[in-house]
Amino acid sequence: MTFLDSIVVKRDGGVNSREQLDELARGAADGSVPDYQLSAWLMAAYVKGLDPKETADLTLAMAHSGERLDLTGLPRPWLDKHSTGGVGDKTTLVVLPILAACGVTVVKMSGRGLGTTGGTIDKLESVPGFRTDLMPEEMVAQAKRIGIALSGQTPRLAPADKALYALRDVTGTVASIPLITASILSKKIAGGAETVVLDVKCGSGAFMKSLTEAESLAHSLVETGRLCGLQMRAVITDMDQPLGSTVGNALEVKEALAVLDPSYSSTLDDTEEDDTDGRRRFFNLCVGLAGHALEAVGKGNHEDALAAVRSGRALTKLKVWFEAQGCSIDLDQDVNWQEPRTKRDVVLDGESGYVSRVCAKTVGEVALELGAGRVTKDDPIDPTAGVTVMRGIGSKILPGEPLFEMQSSRDVDWGQLSTRLRQAVSVSSEQVGGVRPLIKIVD
Amino acid sequence: MTFLDSIVVKRDGGVNSREQLDELARGAADGSVPDYQLSAWLMAAYVKGLDPKETADLTLAMAHSGERLDLTGLPRPWLDKHSTGGVGDKTTLVVLPILAACGVTVVKMSGRGLGTTGGTIDKLESVPGFRTDLMPEEMVAQAKRIGIALSGQTPRLAPADKALYALRDVTGTVASIPLITASILSKKIAGGAETVVLDVKCGSGAFMKSLTEAESLAHSLVETGRLCGLQMRAVITDMDQPLGSTVGNALEVKEALAVLDPSYSSTLDDTEEDDTDGRRRFFNLCVGLAGHALEAVGKGNHEDALAAVRSGRALTKLKVWFEAQGCSIDLDQDVNWQEPRTKRDVVLDGESGYVSRVCAKTVGEVALELGAGRVTKDDPIDPTAGVTVMRGIGSKILPGEPLFEMQSSRDVDWGQLSTRLRQAVSVSSEQVGGVRPLIKIVD
Repeated sequence: MTFLDSIVVKRDGGVNSREQLDELARGAADGSVPDYQLSAWLMAAYVKGLDPKETADLTLAMAHSGERLDLTGLPRPWLDKHSTGGVGDKTTLVVLPILAACGVTVVKMSGRGLGTTGGTIDKLESVPGFRTDLMPEEMVAQAKRIGIALSGQTPRLAPADKALYALRDVTGTVASIPLITASILSKKIAGGAETVVLDVKCGSGAFMKSLTEAESLAHSLVETGRLCGLQMRAVITDMDQPLGSTVGNALEVKEALAVLDPSYSSTLDDTEEDDTDGRRRFFNLCVGLAGHALEAVGKGNHEDALAAVRSGRALTKLKVWFEAQGCSIDLDQDVNWQEPRTKRDVVLDGESGYVSRVCAKTVGEVALELGAGRVTKDDPIDPTAGVTVMRGIGSKILPGEPLFEMQSSRDVDWGQLSTRLRQAVSVSSEQVGGVRPLIKIVD
Repeated sequence: MTFLDSIVVKRDGGVNSREQLDELARGAADGSVPDYQLSAWLMAAYVKGLDPKETADLTLAMAHSGERLDLTGLPRPWLDKHSTGGVGDKTTLVVLPILAACGVTVVKMSGRGLGTTGGTIDKLESVPGFRTDLMPEEMVAQAKRIGIALSGQTPRLAPADKALYALRDVTGTVASIPLITASILSKKIAGGAETVVLDVKCGSGAFMKSLTEAESLAHSLVETGRLCGLQMRAVITDMDQPLGSTVGNALEVKEALAVLDPSYSSTLDDTEEDDTDGRRRFFNLCVGLAGHALEAVGKGNHEDALAAVRSGRALTKLKVWFEAQGCSIDLDQDVNWQEPRTKRDVVLDGESGYVSRVCAKTVGEVALELGAGRVTKDDPIDPTAGVTVMRGIGSKILPGEPLFEMQSSRDVDWGQLSTRLRQAVSVSSEQVGGVRPLIKIVD
């Protein structure tokens, strides 16, 4: 009954040793510590916290609870990018091709969405033929060939995280910064990363609602990652309004393709940043994040990221990547994949003015009800479903002009969803500025 | 997933409603709330506590999680006596017959021992033929006939307590005053009691080591019991040295018989209290407790308790009780039942003086190793095993005189156990007073 000692130590606010945390992770992975003891420990850890060294020890214990990707032989640097998730967050789909186009090896495991937060795996699965179930060997081989590989979580890597996360979900112990930190970073370490670039989302559409919370998580991730021997770079970015102009799986992949297309960036005037436009904000965020990542690994900067997009090299890399993972359509020719059965506009019914609020949380909830997400983890998804945000914060709008376009292939209550979306927006008589996507760099 | 809400409320230090606690108790009893959620709640409750109303609500929810004994038709008052347990604590065997002899109906469920704390059920099972597995119907019928019934815990009464206790034992959540309170009182209520007399043990041989801890538990029990509609009386009693002069199952039953025998009490000089003698201290405690119980239910006082013993009515009641529950020997004739295979003295090896310490915890541990107790709950017990304490605190002792007598029918390391018992005793050159058994009355 040695794990009982670990519970008692944590219950009384003490510090668990590396050996105790190894036993916890091993026990979670192989079932040798029963669920009821794991959940008692999780609650004690939630309430009493973990110190930085403990958090790092837990992270390493979880990272070593299963196999680890061996990237030996692949060109360095080995980088992973992680977002804490938000409404319309398709950043990975743009940033990874930019980095790979700049000579960085990016190997990444992503999750599925639950609730209003979409998952990268769900987005990619909306692409006909796209495989998200690569085996560890396949990921390494593909990354060696083309510099980029992305897969859903495999139970072979960091199995302790899978077991502990399932328990946290049903025991009220999700919202713990040390536990979130260990969960995120253990998967990065098991996936072979040496550098991690973090995008911590902050606002109504994210898990962290306030800047204070987002900063706590970002600092914990950076400190713990460094204690684990990782190079870390973190930014806090806005999630009060949806990211980009689309929310929904195929919609978001299409938007990622659009911003990587040189024809989009060639139209942008560098001297004039229009942060009222969702797509422009999204583009800026992706290039900004990629620039930070390149700096972190000494492979360039913001200019190099921008050049990779403008030259078309990033888009080419995305196409190579999609093809490598099974994409069965011609992205240049087949533009009408995953078209929805129905589309509906939500228009401004009041007086003209300037958009002062677009609630990301509500937009996420409506997208979920349209079929873009799942309430419980076995729900099916409608890849065609989603919301297009026609006006970002700061935009001028006249009565009758569209605020949103909803789309779905399901029978939904369009009227009720339309009302909810209308209420997600505030319009004021005076112009307010848009919100910069990048709030803060954490170091 | 409604129980998740109850966990979150408790995790954040809030108050669970009666409905939430009903769901908890029902879920623990019928398995509808999984163990991992129960243990997360238990840890949250351990760390954050329960307020008095919540503790009472939990108690009632657990009491109502199964059947309840229906004592309708039995003479009132209906009383239960509870001890929090200690080394050599055979008080129940003496107090119950005194109370029944005074016209009180005593119906009681008792537990088995684990670790150094003996259980009343184990003691009674050392008596040849004694049945401790009475069904609820049998208990009620027997109490109706003779005023007294005692059985082991049945899964039909307060099943939530059984499930929650098993989880607390393996999740580090035993030592919580509200959880201990609800566990104790829920069984009393399910057993039909209207008045409960509590004996909270305090000292090295008890769960509560300090007077502060013992007072906290006593106050919680009294307050919660009253909120649940019970009449409550509590005392705190000494458990720094073993209670009485014997520790071990058959040994303790024989000591209970001895103090109930009128030939013992007739030799005692009422004007001179010798609290250096273990048996005398035990006798005083039992009569004192019984007196408090009689006062609590308006059936008499200390004098009446003493008279019941001196007249032999209490001993007669015990014999009737033992016979009703299957005792197969003649307690007057068969005095050599459960004799051990081996007995060994532990003598004073140093200078003469006065005993200043007899560590109840160590004596309990040695008795356990002799075979009187169990380390894990399925261990067999040697009913003949135990320790006789020859000198209480304050007694004068000369070199070569016995401090203890050990006995067992097993092969044990007598030398090592003898050394440990010797170390349980301190001898000083000056006389110290014995410790009064009754420390404090809590109200």
